[in-house]
Amino acid sequence: MKKLSGIKTVICDIDDTLYPSTEFASIARKNAIQSMLEAGLDAGAGRAYAALSAIVAKYSSNYPHHLDRLCEKFGCLGDKKIIAAGIKGYHDTKLTIQPFPDVPRTLLELRLRGYKLCVASEGFAIKQWEKLIRLRLHHFFGQVFVSEELGMSKSKKFYVHIAGKLGNAGNCLMAGDRLEKDIIPAKAAGMRTALLLASQNGRDIELNKPSSKYIDLRLRTFSDLLKYL
Amino acid sequence: MKKLSGIKTVICDIDDTLYPSTEFASIARKNAIQSMLEAGLDAGAGRAYAALSAIVAKYSSNYPHHLDRLCEKFGCLGDKKIIAAGIKGYHDTKLTIQPFPDVPRTLLELRLRGYKLCVASEGFAIKQWEKLIRLRLHHFFGQVFVSEELGMSKSKKFYVHIAGKLGNAGNCLMAGDRLEKDIIPAKAAGMRTALLLASQNGRDIELNKPSSKYIDLRLRTFSDLLKYL
Repeated sequence: MKKLSGIKTVICDIDDTLYPSTEFASIARKNAIQSMLEAGLDAGAGRAYAALSAIVAKYSSNYPHHLDRLCEKFGCLGDKKIIAAGIKGYHDTKLTIQPFPDVPRTLLELRLRGYKLCVASEGFAIKQWEKLIRLRLHHFFGQVFVSEELGMSKSKKFYVHIAGKLGNAGNCLMAGDRLEKDIIPAKAAGMRTALLLASQNGRDIELNKPSSKYIDLRLRTFSDLLKYL
Repeated sequence: MKKLSGIKTVICDIDDTLYPSTEFASIARKNAIQSMLEAGLDAGAGRAYAALSAIVAKYSSNYPHHLDRLCEKFGCLGDKKIIAAGIKGYHDTKLTIQPFPDVPRTLLELRLRGYKLCVASEGFAIKQWEKLIRLRLHHFFGQVFVSEELGMSKSKKFYVHIAGKLGNAGNCLMAGDRLEKDIIPAKAAGMRTALLLASQNGRDIELNKPSSKYIDLRLRTFSDLLKYL
């Protein structure tokens, strides 16, 4: 297995890279619906979950009124008790948030081998920091770059900016699960890239097609980094 | 501030060293009693808490029937519903367990400076490991020595045995909160010692009296280790 030379900094995405965010969101939404049903939402659990999933897809995950739209659909718009129950069900689930099993020991080992670690993440700064802290991974990272704070989403410009802060794009390895967000623009900015395959189930990525030229490493799981560094 | 030379391994106690176990136990017992009252225990909260504290003191913290004795005192011996409520209240509190705030970053920094880290703890192996895992500190420690597994409590012999496993007592620093368990026997085995003062409130330790000769470092808080190493 060929080692990657010259890397000094490993930059990590958070969602579906450090922890299974897709799975977490699914569980949290189910728990929100359970609480809302218990509080009086008049719907079947399956239909309510499907409706909530459709609402999230339509309005994006950071839209703040998913549950209002859900109540609207089932004839209880404005019922604060049901909304509050949903919020409680969702937020209680955060207590169960866990990193991918190999992530904590891999981050520690990378630090011990002398690599700097950073985060590059799309979203709201407070929300992304809350995840790092709940995962108890925050101490590993020297710098955390979040799109909201930088005022730009994950584009080539975003990664050029980060590379400027870290010194040299050629010494950076960007690790993430999204070809369009983590791999292609990071490579365009001169970084090396590692694509997490663990989260690719059902995602329509043609890994052996033209996108191949953007991917330096394919990681079956996060700890595979240790084989290449 | 004089640095300690020749230390290669830092050995840590768990309870009241890595996390505030006394405070945790107090909160967990209060939550156990709240649950038992809710389930029908016929007692005042204050009296029930005082009774439970007395039972723990009398039978030791590892005695498995504290709640049976508590029910006995308040006339509901054998009431499984009340016992179960108490167990639930106690165990749910474990979800809130947190390290002392400076512990995770201090352990990481010690590892980055090249020190080996170990644990030396008195108690049952499974219970002590559960604490390390819940605290998410388990990856920092190369070896974990628990009295149950070694078949001896924290005596000079216990520390001599550990030093044998680690190489040389003179390269070891034992950090803990208990003079009798962590400091005096470790020193007798040839280790250097660091006493945590944060947990000494109300404990009758004459720090400037004869015991002084056993204490190499007095730590106001765990991160003070970084000043001496």
